[in-house]
Amino acid sequence: MNIGIIGFGYWGTNLVRNFANLKDVKLKSVADERAERKSALRSLCPAAEFTASADDILSDKEIDAVVIATPVFTHYDMAKKALNNDKHVLLEKPMVSKTDQAKELIELADRKNKLLMVDHTFLYTGAVQKMKSLIDSGDIGNIKYFDSTRINLGLFQPDINVLWDLAPHDISILNYLIKEVPYSVQATGVSHTNNGIENIAYININYNSGFIAHFSCSWTSPVKIRMMLIGGDKKMILFNDVEPTEKIKVYDTGYELKTDEDKKKVLVDYRTGDIYTPKLDTKEALAVMAHDFVSSIINGQKPLSDNTSGFEVVRILEASQTSIKNKGREVVL
Amino acid sequence: MNIGIIGFGYWGTNLVRNFANLKDVKLKSVADERAERKSALRSLCPAAEFTASADDILSDKEIDAVVIATPVFTHYDMAKKALNNDKHVLLEKPMVSKTDQAKELIELADRKNKLLMVDHTFLYTGAVQKMKSLIDSGDIGNIKYFDSTRINLGLFQPDINVLWDLAPHDISILNYLIKEVPYSVQATGVSHTNNGIENIAYININYNSGFIAHFSCSWTSPVKIRMMLIGGDKKMILFNDVEPTEKIKVYDTGYELKTDEDKKKVLVDYRTGDIYTPKLDTKEALAVMAHDFVSSIINGQKPLSDNTSGFEVVRILEASQTSIKNKGREVVL
Amino acid sequence: MNIGIIGFGYWGTNLVRNFANLKDVKLKSVADERAERKSALRSLCPAAEFTASADDILSDKEIDAVVIATPVFTHYDMAKKALNNDKHVLLEKPMVSKTDQAKELIELADRKNKLLMVDHTFLYTGAVQKMKSLIDSGDIGNIKYFDSTRINLGLFQPDINVLWDLAPHDISILNYLIKEVPYSVQATGVSHTNNGIENIAYININYNSGFIAHFSCSWTSPVKIRMMLIGGDKKMILFNDVEPTEKIKVYDTGYELKTDEDKKKVLVDYRTGDIYTPKLDTKEALAVMAHDFVSSIINGQKPLSDNTSGFEVVRILEASQTSIKNKGREVVL
Amino acid sequence: MNIGIIGFGYWGTNLVRNFANLKDVKLKSVADERAERKSALRSLCPAAEFTASADDILSDKEIDAVVIATPVFTHYDMAKKALNNDKHVLLEKPMVSKTDQAKELIELADRKNKLLMVDHTFLYTGAVQKMKSLIDSGDIGNIKYFDSTRINLGLFQPDINVLWDLAPHDISILNYLIKEVPYSVQATGVSHTNNGIENIAYININYNSGFIAHFSCSWTSPVKIRMMLIGGDKKMILFNDVEPTEKIKVYDTGYELKTDEDKKKVLVDYRTGDIYTPKLDTKEALAVMAHDFVSSIINGQKPLSDNTSGFEVVRILEASQTSIKNKGREVVL
Repeated sequence: MNIGIIGFGYWGTNLVRNFANLKDVKLKSVADERAERKSALRSLCPAAEFTASADDILSDKEIDAVVIATPVFTHYDMAKKALNNDKHVLLEKPMVSKTDQAKELIELADRKNKLLMVDHTFLYTGAVQKMKSLIDSGDIGNIKYFDSTRINLGLFQPDINVLWDLAPHDISILNYLIKEVPYSVQATGVSHTNNGIENIAYININYNSGFIAHFSCSWTSPVKIRMMLIGGDKKMILFNDVEPTEKIKVYDTGYELKTDEDKKKVLVDYRTGDIYTPKLDTKEALAVMAHDFVSSIINGQKPLSDNTSGFEVVRILEASQTSIKNKGREVVL
Repeated sequence: MNIGIIGFGYWGTNLVRNFANLKDVKLKSVADERAERKSALRSLCPAAEFTASADDILSDKEIDAVVIATPVFTHYDMAKKALNNDKHVLLEKPMVSKTDQAKELIELADRKNKLLMVDHTFLYTGAVQKMKSLIDSGDIGNIKYFDSTRINLGLFQPDINVLWDLAPHDISILNYLIKEVPYSVQATGVSHTNNGIENIAYININYNSGFIAHFSCSWTSPVKIRMMLIGGDKKMILFNDVEPTEKIKVYDTGYELKTDEDKKKVLVDYRTGDIYTPKLDTKEALAVMAHDFVSSIINGQKPLSDNTSGFEVVRILEASQTSIKNKGREVVL
Repeated sequence: MNIGIIGFGYWGTNLVRNFANLKDVKLKSVADERAERKSALRSLCPAAEFTASADDILSDKEIDAVVIATPVFTHYDMAKKALNNDKHVLLEKPMVSKTDQAKELIELADRKNKLLMVDHTFLYTGAVQKMKSLIDSGDIGNIKYFDSTRINLGLFQPDINVLWDLAPHDISILNYLIKEVPYSVQATGVSHTNNGIENIAYININYNSGFIAHFSCSWTSPVKIRMMLIGGDKKMILFNDVEPTEKIKVYDTGYELKTDEDKKKVLVDYRTGDIYTPKLDTKEALAVMAHDFVSSIINGQKPLSDNTSGFEVVRILEASQTSIKNKGREVVL
Repeated sequence: MNIGIIGFGYWGTNLVRNFANLKDVKLKSVADERAERKSALRSLCPAAEFTASADDILSDKEIDAVVIATPVFTHYDMAKKALNNDKHVLLEKPMVSKTDQAKELIELADRKNKLLMVDHTFLYTGAVQKMKSLIDSGDIGNIKYFDSTRINLGLFQPDINVLWDLAPHDISILNYLIKEVPYSVQATGVSHTNNGIENIAYININYNSGFIAHFSCSWTSPVKIRMMLIGGDKKMILFNDVEPTEKIKVYDTGYELKTDEDKKKVLVDYRTGDIYTPKLDTKEALAVMAHDFVSSIINGQKPLSDNTSGFEVVRILEASQTSIKNKGREVVL
């Protein structure tokens, strides 16, 4: 199988390194409009051709699968062309910037019988895999809330706001871990630049069952926080991604509600117990993702981070954007 | 000056200890309807009388000032009676449960020429005092955001939700540090008990200048987080109240916006520099507050935590409550 | 049973509070040569008499048991007098300053059939009790090393060096957890004051089996560290006493040695696994210790922190002192 | 200038990457006796030749400078041969395993007028450079103690013990920061394997002024600690190398000694103040070291990490080894 990668910036470099190391695959070409990236490619992967034109890859008959790591506003056109040219497509997150585009691409991929996958790398980390197995086993109980903070002094993106930049990670993890379908979204945000692009934003996602998800995103924090709390009625999980090894802690903490008939008030029984810090798989998530892309093509199976996941992330981001522009009004999904 | 304290529970015990140690003051009586609290008072402050009836204190001619540390729904009636009986009043936070009540009490205190003060203890901590002086000195620059997280496995209150329980601390700090008047409030929350009292809630407070404040409150977190981020355009402050001594860190971190005329895009200059962890005053905040109450009465001056502060907290809580009940709709203040 | 406490300073205050709360016991008198401590006693425990003379307590016929919380150089004389006057004795740590004195007191207590106990409070903490049960259960395997760091900016003691001040805690824990008898001691220390009293010191305790214990003590650290590592060949324990709740972590970490016959070198199999943070009992250790003293007297049983433990601590401190004065020479016990 | 690197293992890989990126230098050959390392070199630095024989590099007339990253017992022979063949030499730490060998190599390099440098990489880190400038400026005052802990679950080395593996970092930093010449060394250690190679060891270094240095090294800790405390009589430094960015904290903490003439006892005035966390240079230390090697050759100047530093480290390690074998006896340097 021949692979082409379009976009050889910061993330593209990681993709090149991982696809170059993959078995059963040849990284044939890499495209980046900045001609000066040619020498970087030569030292990283001398066997791959460099081109300044994405079209060279999109129209290359020998290329079976295309990885697209360019700014999000280019995703739709490139992916469409690639699919029309009978290539499998891996899109970086977020998939596209509009739900309609996502839907159209998914239908096109179905018609063409090609794999259209979205790279939500986090789903392949040892930490998320561990949380998935903990939740699926029933150990955590019924999940009551999900609260994620992803803030640091980050690069202000010129074309997308902080939600489209940072929240795809957390929303894709949420959707992967929680099966319930969200009901509505509320979001607020503020821009401290004169281009109106939000650098701080908050999202609430509401569910019929009373489960609630909250996201806090910022490019303007002096400290780097990557923290997720997931509370079940049996146990609770803390995922602290800035910890080098002890990223997941499972707290045997909870409360039980009892009805006090006479006094007609809620009695809450608290419980705090042991903490369990599981060992995590330390394989590089991007390598596992790249392997999933290739093996899903070969075996004709659905990848873990599939295009439904990509679509759902776009749907929630789009609704959040609408809510922000309407001063936090609830947007039913 | 003779003092009476009404409510001798967890917090009332701290109040008794501090008022008993205060100079120029006599703690004359303590009231609590639970008669069994009498022995606890005898061992803590043998000189004070115990009564099971708040009215004994409210109508005691010899008592000059009353401290009210009972559930919030009782505050209005008790404070009104105390003021009408020509006593100075210190109310625990939150002041009352309705803006109208707050206004009425403030006017009554004015007419009676008595001090009506609200105990926002946090304003008297070394940490908040240090932040106040840093911000007032101009070192932090124009404040752009305020983000506070106050979560732990907390006691579910039977009569008030998590916002009324936890947010008064953070809102009073916000109002103390930031002079700009808020424009509107949005809040969401969820109850995981069958009494409909929210145990998780989020508030956004919006301002005309683009400054934004966000609060995250929960009684159902497995970990205790007490963290506040305040971002200026010169420096940023992290207030981590669970740290035993290094509670305040000042980051010489920021970004400057430059306009790139040709490319019509925002250029951001990032700066990360040294961190400064100031030594903080370690006097017990409650002792300083108690002293402020007494000396403000004696000297006829305005206390640091005055009834305007109390009123503003109630106003924002009330608006938040309205927003929660309306699915996060913006409530203009 | 009537109790007398001699020494009403910082630690004596804690003792008074705990013995005053104990059932089946009356705290009859408290002695402190500083007459001004009388008023402090009156507010803390109005029922107890105050005296400026220790002898009033030591010769009081009505007093059954004496708690001695004075400087260590006074312990021997006071305890001897108390035992001769047929009183049970609880000595603060370190028991005495010489092994001979410890031996003499133990023999005297035996002859008088009185309890002579030493207050190594740490043995009664939830953390040490948890480590004891983990080690005794065999979960940790054969213990290979014990490494303790106890440093902070501490009060320079005028009469004893940092070892006699801080190391009794750690040595008593070591002796409680590990059954093997130590073989020899080496210690080094340095004094940065002109009185020659060491403010930094290190001890090594050697054992025939290859087990090793190391202690690091300092009054001149800018940070407070209270950390103990205990390594077994199955698991390892980290005891971090400055953590508010997560004090004990059990690491499923280890290595297995294999002999590679051909290459004649050691092969080491590493293993890192899950971490387990057990919930700890949070009862105040001093209250449990006080109860142990009284119930051991009543029931005629051996307390957990007995005088053998007290003797062993003195023996190791004395040998360490000798080693320091001989430039770190090994002192066989 | 043509460079050859001998030893292409874990650290050799870092050296190849850095020397390959250096200007004014050509990485001509890399030697490793494991022939299978050839392909790794081809992908990392296709321009460099691979050879399985160190002698190919040591005798290559075109090579001007040799970097030796092989096990320490091979250093002496290789460096001697390289110098005799008129090549500049960079030796990995520790320089050699005997003081005599170090002396002989230094004299040989002098006679041959070639640079003989030792790679103590840590001296080139932003953290050590910051500590150096803080101490040299006088801000910290007279340095009273140096205490370093370097422990983790480490690879048991088959030929050298934990001191020779880990302590060179800390000893080279000590010698770089502190000008006073050490007087004596004491060390203890224990081997938990049957080859007698110590996996835990402690060193004390004594100085005439009362300054003391202590090192704790272990391959058998469940947690990774890289911590250094440096106490001056004005301020104190904490260097915590496992922190991602806030590695250096300067505590405005200290004590002043006062003589109380009457009571003939030491009075200590404590001071705790602000903490300052300076921003550190984040250039890769190994790149700066490689550049220092090359520019010292070109400009005929002494490098920062020179062979005197290398010699002193070996001298202290050798004395420590002697002390360990003599049960901790003091070894005068």
